[in-house]
Amino acid sequence: MSSAADLAFASTPDTDERLNARLFDRYRNTLDVPVAWNETLDTLIAHRSVRAYLPQALPVGTVELLVAAAQSAASSSNLQPWSVVAVEDPARKARLASLAGDQKQIHQAPLFLLWLVDLNRLDRIGEALATPADGLRYLESFLLGAVDTSLAAQSAVVALESIGLGSCYIGAIRNKPAEVAAELNLPPNVFALFGLTVGYPDPGRPASVKPRLPQEAVLFRETYGADDNAHHVAAYDRRLRSFQREQAMVERDWSEQASQRVRGAHLALSGRHELRDILHGLGFGLE
Amino acid sequence: MSSAADLAFASTPDTDERLNARLFDRYRNTLDVPVAWNETLDTLIAHRSVRAYLPQALPVGTVELLVAAAQSAASSSNLQPWSVVAVEDPARKARLASLAGDQKQIHQAPLFLLWLVDLNRLDRIGEALATPADGLRYLESFLLGAVDTSLAAQSAVVALESIGLGSCYIGAIRNKPAEVAAELNLPPNVFALFGLTVGYPDPGRPASVKPRLPQEAVLFRETYGADDNAHHVAAYDRRLRSFQREQAMVERDWSEQASQRVRGAHLALSGRHELRDILHGLGFGLE
Repeated sequence: MSSAADLAFASTPDTDERLNARLFDRYRNTLDVPVAWNETLDTLIAHRSVRAYLPQALPVGTVELLVAAAQSAASSSNLQPWSVVAVEDPARKARLASLAGDQKQIHQAPLFLLWLVDLNRLDRIGEALATPADGLRYLESFLLGAVDTSLAAQSAVVALESIGLGSCYIGAIRNKPAEVAAELNLPPNVFALFGLTVGYPDPGRPASVKPRLPQEAVLFRETYGADDNAHHVAAYDRRLRSFQREQAMVERDWSEQASQRVRGAHLALSGRHELRDILHGLGFGLE
Repeated sequence: MSSAADLAFASTPDTDERLNARLFDRYRNTLDVPVAWNETLDTLIAHRSVRAYLPQALPVGTVELLVAAAQSAASSSNLQPWSVVAVEDPARKARLASLAGDQKQIHQAPLFLLWLVDLNRLDRIGEALATPADGLRYLESFLLGAVDTSLAAQSAVVALESIGLGSCYIGAIRNKPAEVAAELNLPPNVFALFGLTVGYPDPGRPASVKPRLPQEAVLFRETYGADDNAHHVAAYDRRLRSFQREQAMVERDWSEQASQRVRGAHLALSGRHELRDILHGLGFGLE
């Protein structure tokens, strides 16, 4: 399970070589970026989702540190339209897991953070000041909340990785938003956008860096231009297959896997085709 | 304009003291987090939005490095539903600025990144494989795209700060989504979620760390409970006023400022009340 980067770490003292090795792991191809390595870049580019945790307790103050990192991310007009619930009670984690595809890492991680789009706080402030917060009724406000919540959570993820912890986003918490809202006692206009499991990675079951699409497929200059899209996707399918072989995973084209994932049926099965109606039920206007 | 953190940096060699000073800047209050300082935490907690840039060119490879950091962020089911357009042409930056409230930093920054929710790539893959991507028609798919785009951009922001650059998110790019789509030549099912100006911060006009709500207002344990919300908001209003005084800004309660921002009128004025219809026009189903 050792990666190209880990080998490079052992064999070369040159930190720029380390960055190149990290980039090779990410793309399964060389990417020449003449920038000096630093610890933060290393943390970012070596990111992996961790789904196997040790039972070890987290350091005292971890939650507060992650929330400080999260609150330090940008916020549109400084509206700060999010909150977070830190769940550590095993029984509550188990109930939340059963609402989110029963993923084992929710049971296993000592900490499960629920990241909430929270328009309720602004709504109540508006009430208190007799300034009705009608702007919150629009899809734009929900979207702004989702963006800010995501920026915040991602800064928390980088922070936790910098102190040796691992995490995994749990989008499946959106399978049953009303039930999740009831479990967490959410007021109106608050929505659990995603969960995040947090813990010490189990070194016996290490996670791997997932290769991504070639930059040519996602990065454009001046205007959008994706004429060579099929070519880049085919290259990625091949590179991901070589990764899957290494990992002793079933070999499968990414393009086939992704297209199956966005067929109507899967969304319908996991309940998320009803999201718009459920959000209305939770109080969001989405006008 | 020197901050508490900068003073602490000068006077104490102890790195944990540096973390405490950073946290004090962020909250204008002590927050005891017994975690060892590291460079990444320092970068994260010292984040500030930079709106004044030097004309200095960016290091060769900056865009590629930022995109590598962005692609290293988690992606739901590895769908990678985003793209980014790097704009450096001054004339195009000027046209985009005029669509986004004519913010001067868009003209000034040498690089303007447009972060796109991109469901088009998946749509075309589905076509090629004769697997119609009907799941993309749902609000859930747009939301999943917006979340992944935001996680990616935030990792790019942390990366650029780690090499001494600064940035500012430009949500106002959503004021005129159809016009922005035309300028960037976006195909159907692609939406510019936000912009990001990138450049070297002008040391003559340094940006400050913006204080945030006390953690008690946004962090809950086990279940949501915001009974003391008014109390925490009042404390924040006071702390933000002391920050405004220091910055020679007009003093104004955050609660009043935020509630004015989410009145219907402001949203209506900047055009974002029409977002849902405009997204439909761009091809998004939002069912």
